[in-house]
Amino acid sequence: MDFTSDNIAGASPKIVAALNVAASGTAPAYGSDPWTTKAQAKIDEVFECRTASFFVPTGTAANALALATLTPPWGAVFCHEGAHVMEDECGAPEMFTAGAKLVGIKGAAGKITSESLRNMLANFPRGLVKQVQPAALSLSQVTECGTLYTCDEIAELSAIAHAAGLAVHMDGARFANALVALDATPAEASWKAGIDVLSLGATKNGAFACEAVVFFNPERAATFPFQRKRAGHTLSKGRFLGAQMVTYLEDDHWLDLARAANAHAAKLSNGLTAIRGLQLAWPPQANEIFVFLPLQVDAALKAAGVTYYTWSLSDEDRHGAQQPADTVFVRLVTSFATRGEDIAKFLEIARDAA
Amino acid sequence: MDFTSDNIAGASPKIVAALNVAASGTAPAYGSDPWTTKAQAKIDEVFECRTASFFVPTGTAANALALATLTPPWGAVFCHEGAHVMEDECGAPEMFTAGAKLVGIKGAAGKITSESLRNMLANFPRGLVKQVQPAALSLSQVTECGTLYTCDEIAELSAIAHAAGLAVHMDGARFANALVALDATPAEASWKAGIDVLSLGATKNGAFACEAVVFFNPERAATFPFQRKRAGHTLSKGRFLGAQMVTYLEDDHWLDLARAANAHAAKLSNGLTAIRGLQLAWPPQANEIFVFLPLQVDAALKAAGVTYYTWSLSDEDRHGAQQPADTVFVRLVTSFATRGEDIAKFLEIARDAA
Amino acid sequence: MDFTSDNIAGASPKIVAALNVAASGTAPAYGSDPWTTKAQAKIDEVFECRTASFFVPTGTAANALALATLTPPWGAVFCHEGAHVMEDECGAPEMFTAGAKLVGIKGAAGKITSESLRNMLANFPRGLVKQVQPAALSLSQVTECGTLYTCDEIAELSAIAHAAGLAVHMDGARFANALVALDATPAEASWKAGIDVLSLGATKNGAFACEAVVFFNPERAATFPFQRKRAGHTLSKGRFLGAQMVTYLEDDHWLDLARAANAHAAKLSNGLTAIRGLQLAWPPQANEIFVFLPLQVDAALKAAGVTYYTWSLSDEDRHGAQQPADTVFVRLVTSFATRGEDIAKFLEIARDAA
Amino acid sequence: MDFTSDNIAGASPKIVAALNVAASGTAPAYGSDPWTTKAQAKIDEVFECRTASFFVPTGTAANALALATLTPPWGAVFCHEGAHVMEDECGAPEMFTAGAKLVGIKGAAGKITSESLRNMLANFPRGLVKQVQPAALSLSQVTECGTLYTCDEIAELSAIAHAAGLAVHMDGARFANALVALDATPAEASWKAGIDVLSLGATKNGAFACEAVVFFNPERAATFPFQRKRAGHTLSKGRFLGAQMVTYLEDDHWLDLARAANAHAAKLSNGLTAIRGLQLAWPPQANEIFVFLPLQVDAALKAAGVTYYTWSLSDEDRHGAQQPADTVFVRLVTSFATRGEDIAKFLEIARDAA
Repeated sequence: MDFTSDNIAGASPKIVAALNVAASGTAPAYGSDPWTTKAQAKIDEVFECRTASFFVPTGTAANALALATLTPPWGAVFCHEGAHVMEDECGAPEMFTAGAKLVGIKGAAGKITSESLRNMLANFPRGLVKQVQPAALSLSQVTECGTLYTCDEIAELSAIAHAAGLAVHMDGARFANALVALDATPAEASWKAGIDVLSLGATKNGAFACEAVVFFNPERAATFPFQRKRAGHTLSKGRFLGAQMVTYLEDDHWLDLARAANAHAAKLSNGLTAIRGLQLAWPPQANEIFVFLPLQVDAALKAAGVTYYTWSLSDEDRHGAQQPADTVFVRLVTSFATRGEDIAKFLEIARDAA
Repeated sequence: MDFTSDNIAGASPKIVAALNVAASGTAPAYGSDPWTTKAQAKIDEVFECRTASFFVPTGTAANALALATLTPPWGAVFCHEGAHVMEDECGAPEMFTAGAKLVGIKGAAGKITSESLRNMLANFPRGLVKQVQPAALSLSQVTECGTLYTCDEIAELSAIAHAAGLAVHMDGARFANALVALDATPAEASWKAGIDVLSLGATKNGAFACEAVVFFNPERAATFPFQRKRAGHTLSKGRFLGAQMVTYLEDDHWLDLARAANAHAAKLSNGLTAIRGLQLAWPPQANEIFVFLPLQVDAALKAAGVTYYTWSLSDEDRHGAQQPADTVFVRLVTSFATRGEDIAKFLEIARDAA
Repeated sequence: MDFTSDNIAGASPKIVAALNVAASGTAPAYGSDPWTTKAQAKIDEVFECRTASFFVPTGTAANALALATLTPPWGAVFCHEGAHVMEDECGAPEMFTAGAKLVGIKGAAGKITSESLRNMLANFPRGLVKQVQPAALSLSQVTECGTLYTCDEIAELSAIAHAAGLAVHMDGARFANALVALDATPAEASWKAGIDVLSLGATKNGAFACEAVVFFNPERAATFPFQRKRAGHTLSKGRFLGAQMVTYLEDDHWLDLARAANAHAAKLSNGLTAIRGLQLAWPPQANEIFVFLPLQVDAALKAAGVTYYTWSLSDEDRHGAQQPADTVFVRLVTSFATRGEDIAKFLEIARDAA
Repeated sequence: MDFTSDNIAGASPKIVAALNVAASGTAPAYGSDPWTTKAQAKIDEVFECRTASFFVPTGTAANALALATLTPPWGAVFCHEGAHVMEDECGAPEMFTAGAKLVGIKGAAGKITSESLRNMLANFPRGLVKQVQPAALSLSQVTECGTLYTCDEIAELSAIAHAAGLAVHMDGARFANALVALDATPAEASWKAGIDVLSLGATKNGAFACEAVVFFNPERAATFPFQRKRAGHTLSKGRFLGAQMVTYLEDDHWLDLARAANAHAAKLSNGLTAIRGLQLAWPPQANEIFVFLPLQVDAALKAAGVTYYTWSLSDEDRHGAQQPADTVFVRLVTSFATRGEDIAKFLEIARDAA
């Protein structure tokens, strides 16, 4: 039983089936194949917008490449201090941007507030030569704390950023999970709320390895093909990415997968809340649960071979969520592939140990 | 009919079947999965050597990451002036090495000679501060001209490089094609001939997207995991790469695929040679044919919808191969998936037009 | 009257005289000249240590080059969140290190405490691939708040850093001011307290443009000549730097200059403290004064043409120093060239307005 | 007696005198001082053009920073294969441009011809994603072989470059030497001939350490202040650079210095030509002489303690200049500070030994 992340799942049967079909016959290389073209059209359709979109095999590549089109090397990219681009990509944004600075903003439960963004921007007056120049805002949706921005919150943050001359990027590694939780359309949750470039994840939600970088203003993408190529992220058999993405988006497959993942999380968190002595750090909004597990519960789960990550957050980032004594703070992630029987078993062990 | 490259083929049925199996169940992320472990063991077995090996989705990533472990930013990497790393990766080696300089060496039919390597090294005295410092030699096997180094030639070049303090990298995007053509073992064609790090390609020879970076001295690989991660080339569902590679290497599947590709090329080149007025630039040694097509043959093939690349080479790189009047210089590439009927048809059109 | 910084001063007459002498005759280029050699010997003598030292024209170059020898591109450099390398060099460390991450540590009055360093290091476990790897600690002496680390404090921080496998850099742009304030020897304030590499400033303290990068373990400097060269910081007429540095260090000239600057600051801060309603943020320890000026005092000084910077600090970094109502928080810097009459005039204006 | 380079000279007395004056009094830092302002105005006057100009301490910085404003990291910068930016800056252009590729063009005696430029550009079709994109042409004036482009030649090369969408940079480390040799105005030899950005050297011709980067279209310079700052090339006491440059340009001081240097070279080369058995590689045009010294002459000069560099050039770059048997190929450089008596002595030794 593995609740460490949604990337421990394999690929959805539909996506696998699509790859079986895409495996035969010749096709032009480097993204000139029909699968890629179809996937790009599908993105335009789903987002109700003419986009420039590109496919890459990892979320780190999607984020770092997206940011590299938005900032010069002497730019500042603002993000939550616990954002994936800040903490979990071993400096990929710095590498791809040739040294831009990621500036972390504090905020409870993984979210940046308008006030904190305004305060931070006040410290970066444009044109002050000694300082890196404000270039972009990167928002994670779902956040690293499994929480969500409402579309209005995104729109407000984007407006502040745009007014200050920044572009706005969204790390949507779990964008589908956010969509179904928000009950918003892709357009509402992205460009209609001011997002300029979206990293649209498929890998965590049923693909083998596929993410899209979606530019809602195609002109911004002028240099992307070169940047992707020199980063080694232009797959020669581009059909492999195209076929995954087109299947992912067709017939709402992505939303179905995300709904399943979120439902698993709801079931698990409801079960946990019902256990005396177990306390969630905050209500889960998508497919990630942050919970304070009593030590004996943690021990029992581990003894049963259940895996998950213990988490650490600064007091500030967790404010409102005091860690009870004799607990560990852990993250539990579900996916489309989580099995109902595993959730039941998890809850049973926890209940027995509590 | 597409003879532009071997990457216009899809994936081999065996590899697709392996992905079908690998798609289900949970597995630890980021390369800690059993497929990856098995593929690494398979590489050790096949190369008769304890290696440190890593899987990435593209050849550009493999090459650029390999070189980035071999040179400081102020280093020089010597390669043939027409090498893939030099001409076809949009500056990826420069990006990954943070600015090292690729220094091209001339040589007929894509090959560097011992003499030209020695002469070049004489221009780069170690410790001359104004100049980039000699760091690595990168050899392409099969070369960009479809020719081969013998194992002895590699050993001699490696010895010169090592004596000058350089590490030796091999771009083995078509390593399997070389092996079957040379009738050499993987070990003989790599570390036994002095190769320190090998980019071992699978993509062009039957995989969807998988290349290995193989360090024959595992200590050299100490920083590789960080370099791969920050380049966005550490796939979260590492099983996707592991499953491809293990299947590729098992039961000599890679050699079978390469044998098929090379046999197709032999058949095609034999057929071409038999046509009056058609002249090969040099004898093909693996799965690439360089040929001077009379204009009317070129026109007839194109009229029939056949695709391939016209090529350009400096006189120096082509010496011994004078281009006849009224011809175009073209490259034809075969793969495991080339169909016999397409070769027959190609030859028929050419014969009729000649 | 200009109290904005110590870099608004010109060059000391002794240093100018030395340049007059150094201007004539031929001398080998790129630092092979006798002035450079003599300056390097002088550094060894003054620091009682065999060092490898190099001269560059700016403090930003000294810091960025020093850090670039201490961290790989995927490394983390820890420093105070308000450090010059963090805030005032427009991303130079990121450029020179090819993308390493500077990680800011909070701390009152510009100083890092042992506890805060330990806590931060706990967040950066070595070998966790997703994260940049701990590589160096950079301490500023004098700090950006004009405060000082005692030699014992430096030793304690260095010991923690070394135990965690980090190298320790000191940004000594105002190292001479620190030395005379601490009454410590150069050796005590640097390598004896665990500093591995020192940026030794001369520019702010009487030179035109000269800083040294001093490696107390010469082996660490092996790649420095190449890194300096490719950064464009190897002056062809190296004598210009050598002559400044040798004169700066000879006959305790640097200490005399720093003593003058510090004495001016003491006089100014004593005068300010004696004015009712004026309050220092914290006691100045070298040549920088941080003071809360009543608005009417600020207005009067500005009306008289006096220049200085208003400053901003996070509450956390200023804790213990509450800003009184109706004041501005300003920084005043003195130098060797500050005129006593200007201090008297400043105090007179402030006294009259208060 | 040292003929290794013009950078073995010190500073001209006028420039030293200016520094003496500039050493006292306060002045705003980072280039906001009156000397810098005056020097910028002087450049506009001398070049008869409103420019954006910036001062840096080294030629490598000037070149690398200039190029970094003209090319993206995935760009190609074309230059002569023996250009200073290609061979003598330890990869600075690659560092400052974040990995752009310098592409060398062959050409006799250090010069690029229109034909060779056109041929090279034909290999770099814009938009071919696998390849770095053509971005800039860099011309050296005086060339590395001591030869000159005529203004017409520059205009023709610039026109070809502009037509292909490239910007044109001139490495004018010895621009003054070129001006007096060409008898051209600064404007004629730069922007009127199509140069977009000029590295204007003063160091080799009488300054201590000062070069200007001159943008003839000020809009191109928008990001330069940030790029210079993060490269550590923004001197805090900017007056040091400003004072040198203003003095250098005032009253034709730069031209006087260059005239002296060129006259010394003419005298030396005339003397050499008169010696039986001595043969120049090509006629010197500015202050550098390339000569084939008979071995016994070389030995006699060295025995007398005369220093200079032996040189190496590819056959192609030297074509038309066959090296006679029993000679060494050497470079002799004169400067404003070369002493007539040293030239006489040199010729005497050579004559006696020949």
